[in-house]
This record gives sequence, structure tokens and C-alpha cells, in this order.
Amino acid sequence: MPPALDQVLSYATDQDSQFEADLEALLRIPSISADSQFAPQVRQAAGWLVEHLQTLGLQSELIETPGHPLVCATTPPVPGAPVALVYGHYDVQPPDPLDQWESPPFEPTRRDGNLYARGATDDKGQMLTHIKSVQSWLATHQRLPLQVKFLIEGEEEIGSEHLEEYLAEHAEALACDCVVISDTAQFARGIPAITYGLRGIAYYEIHLQGPSHDLHSGVFGGAVTNPIVTLTKMLAALVDDAGRIQLPNFYDDVVPLAERERKEFAGLPFDEDAFRSQLGVEGLTGEVGFSTLERRWARPSYDINGIWGGYQGEGAKTVLPAQAGAKLSFRLVPNQDPEKITASLRSLLEPLVPPGIQFELIAYHGAPGIAMPIDSPLLAAAARAVELGFGHRPVFIREGGSIPIVNTFAERLGAEVLLLGWGQNDDNLHAPNEKFSLADFHRGIRASAALWECLANVP
Amino acid sequence: MPPALDQVLSYATDQDSQFEADLEALLRIPSISADSQFAPQVRQAAGWLVEHLQTLGLQSELIETPGHPLVCATTPPVPGAPVALVYGHYDVQPPDPLDQWESPPFEPTRRDGNLYARGATDDKGQMLTHIKSVQSWLATHQRLPLQVKFLIEGEEEIGSEHLEEYLAEHAEALACDCVVISDTAQFARGIPAITYGLRGIAYYEIHLQGPSHDLHSGVFGGAVTNPIVTLTKMLAALVDDAGRIQLPNFYDDVVPLAERERKEFAGLPFDEDAFRSQLGVEGLTGEVGFSTLERRWARPSYDINGIWGGYQGEGAKTVLPAQAGAKLSFRLVPNQDPEKITASLRSLLEPLVPPGIQFELIAYHGAPGIAMPIDSPLLAAAARAVELGFGHRPVFIREGGSIPIVNTFAERLGAEVLLLGWGQNDDNLHAPNEKFSLADFHRGIRASAALWECLANVP
Repeated sequence: MPPALDQVLSYATDQDSQFEADLEALLRIPSISADSQFAPQVRQAAGWLVEHLQTLGLQSELIETPGHPLVCATTPPVPGAPVALVYGHYDVQPPDPLDQWESPPFEPTRRDGNLYARGATDDKGQMLTHIKSVQSWLATHQRLPLQVKFLIEGEEEIGSEHLEEYLAEHAEALACDCVVISDTAQFARGIPAITYGLRGIAYYEIHLQGPSHDLHSGVFGGAVTNPIVTLTKMLAALVDDAGRIQLPNFYDDVVPLAERERKEFAGLPFDEDAFRSQLGVEGLTGEVGFSTLERRWARPSYDINGIWGGYQGEGAKTVLPAQAGAKLSFRLVPNQDPEKITASLRSLLEPLVPPGIQFELIAYHGAPGIAMPIDSPLLAAAARAVELGFGHRPVFIREGGSIPIVNTFAERLGAEVLLLGWGQNDDNLHAPNEKFSLADFHRGIRASAALWECLANVP
Repeated sequence: MPPALDQVLSYATDQDSQFEADLEALLRIPSISADSQFAPQVRQAAGWLVEHLQTLGLQSELIETPGHPLVCATTPPVPGAPVALVYGHYDVQPPDPLDQWESPPFEPTRRDGNLYARGATDDKGQMLTHIKSVQSWLATHQRLPLQVKFLIEGEEEIGSEHLEEYLAEHAEALACDCVVISDTAQFARGIPAITYGLRGIAYYEIHLQGPSHDLHSGVFGGAVTNPIVTLTKMLAALVDDAGRIQLPNFYDDVVPLAERERKEFAGLPFDEDAFRSQLGVEGLTGEVGFSTLERRWARPSYDINGIWGGYQGEGAKTVLPAQAGAKLSFRLVPNQDPEKITASLRSLLEPLVPPGIQFELIAYHGAPGIAMPIDSPLLAAAARAVELGFGHRPVFIREGGSIPIVNTFAERLGAEVLLLGWGQNDDNLHAPNEKFSLADFHRGIRASAALWECLANVP
């Protein structure tokens, strides 16, 4: 290990407690971007970051957008060295269902070496590792071996709409050789991973309006179209019993998995029994002909994310409801186009709308999937840094989740995107009891500190 | 008109305002039987009735059950005259969705000659007409021409479980020649109806449990069975595109409509355009091969009454939810057995449960349909009384709704059941803005007052 990096890591170790306290402070701010009631708290989180980055010696600012603000910061340029742009997000998912949290989502709580809070791993905790690594370099050397820029947004969980606009307009200021993002997971405990592929997403909401008001199902049932019945028929038509999505031409653009990838996935130490047990399910289902990892990482999928209509309370209410609705999404793989998916979905659903029903389809954010080259020098440098931080060489995997902005970075900035995941798959992101291992938090900081050194040495 | 009845009707006319005030007092009590939080208010409504009936000179009492109490009352026996048992219910449906009420559901409000409140027509208003007619007889003659017994329950909207038990144990005390029930509707404005047939019901709740906690749909989607997707597939399998219910042997016991009934229904002044317009729908659907009235009154039907699962809030949450559920019901016609339906439903659904899902089916109250003889002397007497009260001879119709207890009365007491409907089909029962025409309230009281005279004169 170079002597300079050694000093940096020593400093980081000394500051463990303070770094954790900083993370807790940020986690206490309920920056829920999807719920407009929490807009002030989203802004508060952005402000916290701007001030914190300034305190550490970075030049930082809060950038207004028509939505939630961006946080931008930078260290000074280093001639002859590459430029790294760290992207992260300070907004979090809604914490529902609240009654399933063992400790309140915005009161960070330690249990068994983990810190429990909404946003612990997604993405406040992971994002903060890069700020803390920069702090460690600045505290020990007053400079970094390369220029690091930060771009931290507050709309990742709702589609990054205004970040897209900002990128389009400020590509020059954000120019960089690589974008570093820690918003993914390790492959397993002790096996860090570099993610070279992500699935995309196409997310929709359906509203069905039947009669103008709720009706008695005895007086009207059988003659008046029931919007929930219609909804179940429409949604059931989207996938067959073999897990094949039924949208016309849905699979036309899907890039098949290479034989090499299928072999690599099959060689990973994935324990399907443990996976099922961790999820509390006795069996798994999915697209026939593919393994569980293939289904999660590299095949498109269909989920209903929410559904509602009629009486949801206690007891039996004999209502023929006026309305029903659902949220649904498709995970996409590289080369699938969300806009084509929207057109295809509409073409499948519209003919299924029966007399007496008004149909509305709302398309939320969409993003194509992406897969990056795994033989680049920057990726090799990142692998060395991760090994230094975690004590284990990372495996190269794909990820089932979407980071829509990754595509935009690749396109707008022409930069390589390094997805360095410090989380665990059981960190309950987007679910109750989200957590982040404190050990992984500190390993992430060390890997990030090493990353600046390793990237700077890429010829 | 006999002079005695004339005096009674005059009294009733004089007391219009007081009768309306009594109805409003009862409607102010939110006696929602389905919601256990309202148990005290349910009891309060029962107490109000017991006291009110005592004040009018009846012998009345509150009968405890393991659930909500019963109200029983009687006038003295009249030797040589038949005995009429009035059945009604003082419990009401939940008022959800609250935001669609123009005035609060438990603050009776007059608009356009109607009284708006939950329970206005179903069944507090209709039930009270018989109490007010008895009051009118007692106030003018100190006696009735026949014995009238009242049996008013607080669990009609949740299955009448404890009334059934009470009837089984007290058949002798409740012995009667006919049971009078006003819990149905007129055929149309100005065309009163006697209902000789009712559909039955079989009501269910389905719970599906997938993973033990909500998951990220990106990380797990495609490999972990989504309980909402499963729910839509299961529910969609219950009915085909021609509106035919797919439960095995579902139609085996259905008594086909007689040609005479189809002709009578076809001859009723039913304006389908007005019906659609009143419901705010552009078209109607249902079982292929049957008219709208046939579908509503005399053919079985399938409705989903409620559905839930996942994220129902604002925005896009990418969750693969742990749970999903639905409430569904079948309307049954005479000769269909709810227990057979339950077994058939289970046999259809269980094979559709995929790996990774736990399935629970809860059967709520069930009741078979019923059709009564339309040529009996008691029914003819009732028709004369209705004509006296409403100024129009009643039509003989069926009803799509269920009054499960009607079967029990017919079986346990061996009595004829007279379904005399004072409501309107657009009274919004089980829906927001439930109402009862005050004119119909008073006509109902007059018809009921005449009924005691007409029934007493049946040879």
C-alpha cells in the first residue's frame, strides 16, 4: 500500500465514530421525494449536504430545479490525472407500511452491527462513503490524487426528471472520465461486487372508472361492469403461466444472455435455499427456462406494485365499486425501449376495456437497461481499490434494479460508469427495516479512499 | 276505505313532522355493525328503539346476543286474526368513501324532498314506517286489528349470525302467519312493487402471502412470486369474457327463468338509457343471452367488492409486496347452495396457487336465493294495502339483493314473507349519499297502516 493511502486509511479508522454520527444526522431527515408533503425535509437534506461538504473544504452549492434541489461539489482539478464524478442521491423511498418497522424509519437505530433507517443503504449511507473518503484525503494531505466532483440529487426515487435536464445543460462542467456510483449491493456477505449491467424500468399506473358512484352489488351486480373485475382481467392478461410477458413484440429487442455470462452466473456461490429462507417463501417462480440469478439480473420481468379498489376495511361490504386502480412495472434489459413498451402495453390493454369502463394509463418514468464493458482499465483499477477496502476481490455481476440515470451519464458525459456496491441484498431497501452494515460503511469508505489512488494511477 | 283506517291515516298525516323527527334521531346514531369500533353506537340504536317502542305502548325489550343486540316488541294478541311479524334492521353499512358524501352520513340532511343519511332507506327509514303505522293505530284505536310483533336486528349487514340462532331457539314466541319486511325498492318512481324473489349470496375474502416482507421489485422481480399478480390471475379465472362464472358445476342447480317471468320482466317500463345515464356509464355488460333485468334479478353474478395490496400512495414505488387480498361475492339464484359454491370456489382457486404463495380463503355469510308463490291470499291483501298507501297497484318483481334472513323465516317459522319495498333504486344504499324520499316514507306508513287492516280481513 502506498504510504499516502496508508495515512488516509488510518485517519478514516480514527474517525469511525464521527463518520457514523454524520450518517445518523443525515438519516434523521425524512427526505421522501415521492410525497409532496415532505418537500421541506427533502430540501433540508440537500442543505445539510451542502453545508457538510463546505465544512470539509469542498466548493459546494445547492442547485435549484423545478423539483427537488441538486447538490454539487468539487475538489480542485489535478492536471494530468483523470476526473471522477461521484453520483448519489439523498432522497429516500416512502417508509410504508409503517407498522412493520421495528424501530422508527427516521430514528437511526443500531442492532447487531447494522444501522436501521430508511435510506441507510439506499442511498445516504453508500453515498456518504465517498464524502468521508474525500474528507480523509483532505484531512491528511490537503489534496486528492485526482479531481473528484459530486453530483447528489433528490429525485432518484421518482425518476430523476430534473437531473436529466441539468446534465443536458451542464455536460461541460460535469466532464469526467468516470462516474462512480455506490447504489448497488455486494454479491454476498464478504464478496464485494462490481455491477456491469442494470435492468431498466417502465412504470405505469392504471385508473378504471366504472359507474359514477359506488353501487349495491346485489341490486346492480351482473348488469353493471365492475371495474375491479375488469382490472384483474386486464392485469392477468399481461403475463402467462410460464412467466412470459404477453405484450406484443415485448421480447423482440431483448439481447439474449451470452453463454459466457450464463456460465459465470452459474458459477457464483448462490445458495437458493438460503435465498428462499431469507425471503420466507417455500418456492420461487419466474420465466420458464432461466435460473433465479438470470431472472433477477438479465431477463425482463413484470410486477404489480400496488392495487386498490372498493372496500378494504373489516367485514363484508357488498359494494360494486366506482373505481379501481393499480401500479405496475416492467423491468427491462439492455436494448428494450421504454417508449415502445408503453405503446405495446396500451395496444394490449385498450381492446380489453369493456363497455361501462373508462380507462386511463399513466406512464411514469422509464429507463432502458444497460450493460457496460468489463475489460476497461478504469474498471480494473476500481477492482483493485475494492479489494483493498474489503479484503476480497470483487465479482462481476449484473443487478436487477434500475438506476435510470446511469444511461444518461453514459450517453451525455461519454464516461464509464463504475457501480461499486457496498450494500447487502437483505438490506431491505424499499421495504420496512432498511439497514446498512456499519462494517460495510467503513469498508466502503476505505475502498473509496483507495479508489482515488488507483484511478489516478491508470495510465 | 273503512272508517277505522281513515282515522288512522288522518292521524299519520297530522304527525308527519314528528315522524320525520323520529327518523332523523335514529339516523344520527352511526350503528355500523361491520366495524367493531362502532359497537357502542350499534347498542345505542337498539336502546333508542326499545325505549321508543315502549313509549308508543308496545311491550318491548333488548335481547342480548353474543354480537349486537336484538330488539323485540309486540302488541297484544287478537283472537281470530292472523299474526304479522315485522322484521327490520337498525344496523347500517360503513359510510366509506367518506369524501364522496355531500353532507355527513350521520347528519340527516334534506335536499329536494329527500332525507340524506346512511341508513335512510336501508333500513332505518323503511323499518320505521311499520312502527309509525302501529303508533297511528294505537293512538287512534288503542288496539290493532291483528297482532303485530317486531323483530329488529343489528347484524343484517354482517350476516345475521345471531338472529339465526335466536330464531332457531324462539320459533314458538315468534310464531306468525306472515313476515313483513320493507328492505327492498319500488320498481320505479310511482310504481310500488312486491318482491317475490331474491338472490342469495356467497361472500369471500382471499388473503395471499408472498415473501415475509416487502421487497424491491428491481432486485427480486421476476424470481419471487408477486402476490398481487397471483391475485389478479386467480380472480380473472373466475369469470369468462361472456360473463359466465367459471366455478365447476356453478350453474348445475340454477333454476332457469320461466318463460312467463321473462315476458313479465320484458313488459315492465324499464328505460335502459335512463338506467345507464343514472349510473354514469356508457354501456352495460353481463352474462350473454340475458336482459339487464334478468341479469340483476334472476341470474347469478360475480363481483369483486374490494381489492388491496402494495403501494397505494402518490407516485411510483417499486415494491414487490408481501401481501395482497380481495373481497369477492357471488349473487345466487334459487336452488344454488352457498356451501357447494364455497367448495367449488376452493377447488378452482387452490390449483392456481403458485410456489411462493400462501393462500387463505375466508367464507363470510352465505344465503341461498328464494322465490315465493305469487298467488297467495296474504300477498293479495298486501297488494291492496300498497295500492291504498301509494295510489298505484304494485308490480310483482324480483330483486337482485339478498336478505339472507328471508330464507330462515320461511324455513323456521313456516310463514309467508311479504317484501314490501318503499325505497327507490337510486337511493344509493351501500354507497355515498344514501337517501330516502320523505314522500315515500309517509306513503310507506300509510300502506303499512292499511296492511294491518287488509291482512286482518283475509279469511
